[in-house]
Amino acid sequence: MTDWLDLVRWDDNGLVPAIAQDAISGRILMVAWMNREALSATAEKGQAVYWSRSRNKLWHKGEESGHTQLVKEIRLDCDQDVIVLHVEQQGGIACHTGRESCFFRVLKNGTWEIVDPVLKDPREIYRE
Amino acid sequence: MTDWLDLVRWDDNGLVPAIAQDAISGRILMVAWMNREALSATAEKGQAVYWSRSRNKLWHKGEESGHTQLVKEIRLDCDQDVIVLHVEQQGGIACHTGRESCFFRVLKNGTWEIVDPVLKDPREIYRE
Repeated sequence: MTDWLDLVRWDDNGLVPAIAQDAISGRILMVAWMNREALSATAEKGQAVYWSRSRNKLWHKGEESGHTQLVKEIRLDCDQDVIVLHVEQQGGIACHTGRESCFFRVLKNGTWEIVDPVLKDPREIYRE
Repeated sequence: MTDWLDLVRWDDNGLVPAIAQDAISGRILMVAWMNREALSATAEKGQAVYWSRSRNKLWHKGEESGHTQLVKEIRLDCDQDVIVLHVEQQGGIACHTGRESCFFRVLKNGTWEIVDPVLKDPREIYRE
């Protein structure tokens, strides 16, 4: 049996980018990385599990913040090297800055303008 | 003056991933790469210009197919290393397979199922 994980074209580091998109609004919330184990765990748990390149370990999104992502759908692109997750974002906050989305900067008149509010102080989110 | 392009954290190859998302439906259409020149050209033209890693040159999306992407908004994430473009997709087809989106495979019961139709035969799209 061909394993669905074998159809993913992992890069030289065994990773692919994964885009988390709000399942209802369609807003792109964040982009992180997955290795084989992370994608497998995501499918199994129904919650987003990434690979943290900075900490070099699996990262169950929301493990500290409580802001888990319930996965409604997993998609793969034509080149088989990018994943899209349709998620229900618990707490309505995906970004470590306390914003809904990591994409809170918009290019306007030659500068990156911050257009989205902080919904919760990060010091409140990561209290431990 | 700080150049807005300097705030982007280009990787070791001088690239960042760029996600093109339909400005109205929110559908994620494709992911490609940009270098500094590509992002600069995208902002200047108001049309998506990527860096083709396979052809090693600037790639004005739609230059062959006519399926250009009119750029409505350019966003940057918290880590400053991923770009999101809100685009109006000319011809309604972003994927080289002739589909609206490159993300036409959905994980179902342990297999990647193709769920989106081919809207136009690629041989018709790339006729030259």
